[in-house]
Amino acid sequence: MTDIARLAAQARDGNQRALGRLMSIVERGGDGVRELALHMAPKAGGAKVVGLTGSPGVGKSTTTNALVAEYRKQGQRVAVLAVDPSSPFSGGAILGDRIRMQDHALDSGVYIRSMSSRGHLGGLAAATPQAVRVLEACGFDIVLIETVGVGQAEVSIAALADTTLVLLAPGMGDGIQAVKAGILEVADAFVINKADRDGADATFRDIRSMMSLITREPNAWRQPIVKTVAHRDEGIGDVIDAVAKHHAWLAEHGELERQRTLRAESEVSAIVLGALAKRFAVTDALASRVAAGELDPYTAADEVLSG
Amino acid sequence: MTDIARLAAQARDGNQRALGRLMSIVERGGDGVRELALHMAPKAGGAKVVGLTGSPGVGKSTTTNALVAEYRKQGQRVAVLAVDPSSPFSGGAILGDRIRMQDHALDSGVYIRSMSSRGHLGGLAAATPQAVRVLEACGFDIVLIETVGVGQAEVSIAALADTTLVLLAPGMGDGIQAVKAGILEVADAFVINKADRDGADATFRDIRSMMSLITREPNAWRQPIVKTVAHRDEGIGDVIDAVAKHHAWLAEHGELERQRTLRAESEVSAIVLGALAKRFAVTDALASRVAAGELDPYTAADEVLSG
Repeated sequence: MTDIARLAAQARDGNQRALGRLMSIVERGGDGVRELALHMAPKAGGAKVVGLTGSPGVGKSTTTNALVAEYRKQGQRVAVLAVDPSSPFSGGAILGDRIRMQDHALDSGVYIRSMSSRGHLGGLAAATPQAVRVLEACGFDIVLIETVGVGQAEVSIAALADTTLVLLAPGMGDGIQAVKAGILEVADAFVINKADRDGADATFRDIRSMMSLITREPNAWRQPIVKTVAHRDEGIGDVIDAVAKHHAWLAEHGELERQRTLRAESEVSAIVLGALAKRFAVTDALASRVAAGELDPYTAADEVLSG
Repeated sequence: MTDIARLAAQARDGNQRALGRLMSIVERGGDGVRELALHMAPKAGGAKVVGLTGSPGVGKSTTTNALVAEYRKQGQRVAVLAVDPSSPFSGGAILGDRIRMQDHALDSGVYIRSMSSRGHLGGLAAATPQAVRVLEACGFDIVLIETVGVGQAEVSIAALADTTLVLLAPGMGDGIQAVKAGILEVADAFVINKADRDGADATFRDIRSMMSLITREPNAWRQPIVKTVAHRDEGIGDVIDAVAKHHAWLAEHGELERQRTLRAESEVSAIVLGALAKRFAVTDALASRVAAGELDPYTAADEVLSG
């Protein structure tokens, strides 16, 4: 039995330290991930995967924390992946808000992990599905993917989930901001957090009127808008209901499988492109010629591709 | 003379409609861009390229607008690229804040363009440098790249600039949020907008203390922190001074050339990877097998790469 096979067996038995080591392997990438993938592939697929995204300051961590507590009350095992674009600081040490998660530190039914993609071939787009697969194989019922930042990359990672929650807060710029970041299109439910603040109704109306602009199939899913005050646990049950309803809708319409196929496709693509980026690297000499205007970038790309 | 050659000549003569058509060609990608690149490559390189990034709600558009007005007073020709991750709506029609830019609508020394990357091989990472090249070739002195969203992709687009400004506002989540999004590492100057609000001093101290955590070379650039109230034009001159000082520092230390080479490298890489992504596509059948756990994603990637 290899080290990785042993760790995988221990992690499936509920050993959180073994699970932590597997997650580090996923994060680091390299040969270990390949072997890990072989052990995990056949066991995966059993969890509800929920993505959370939204601007800094809307209360993602607080909401995640409240969701974890509520799911635990229902007897579900919950894992949280806090996905972080590579930061100048290593690991998750700077993430002060992870400290709040220590509420659950003694509960073996909860696993929380900040994840970056240093070194993983294919970046977070490949590392995140692999991490989800490990957590599913270890018997978690719910995997929450919380993304930091609100850009294209983060939105597409949150969109790898079965259900994607978009968090907003009153007064954080108008609803149009949500559209700008391409978020409307990936949201399966909107959560207006800090709903006790001024402007919550205006935010609600903004989202509803934006949604009315979208043309939809007749039996398409209609995104609910839920109001919460996460730090007082208000509305958290409603969020969980919305997730459950959306999951049931996905299953009923054959969308669950379709979505998981899309997720696998984007995972494999990310691995493929990671490998190709190494193979077809642009040299400094070539880039200098483009920078100096001696060569246009398309001709330069042709040289790289034919080399 | 081809259509594109004619448009390029007209645009260089100051014809904004011709310039608009060239920018549409850049956005669409395809064969037109190749020909355009040939015309533009030797003329480029003359503008100061300034990136602006920051969370929704910090006042990026207002700051951009104030910067444009100030640069115009100094007699500089200014172009603004508002780079938008693909949104469910086409073009820039939804961008209500672009309307504010109409202050400059009758000034031929200002060109403003919202840009998405639909269809461009290599996405915004390839389209943006190409758009910058067109604007430089048309004689703009300043190109402002304003990104929407605050994720990994947006930050790396803003970082393509010679000088990257990171905008923050008091009370938009603490300074740690900036670190999380990997922003600290790309900032050449910090702008605390809405500095008349409570908490501006706290935000200032947060940034300064975070910066003190970073180890630096002895003669590295030290990022200034500028306070502004953009809607009243306060502090805008200081931002422009900071940009000018940084640009002088870059030139003096040979960094301008190095940075432009890096920009060219990332542009060519994006084009290369765009072409490879088409060539090495993941089939539905393969993705389904991965989703079902019959095949691990690395073995699937090998199949794609060997196919």
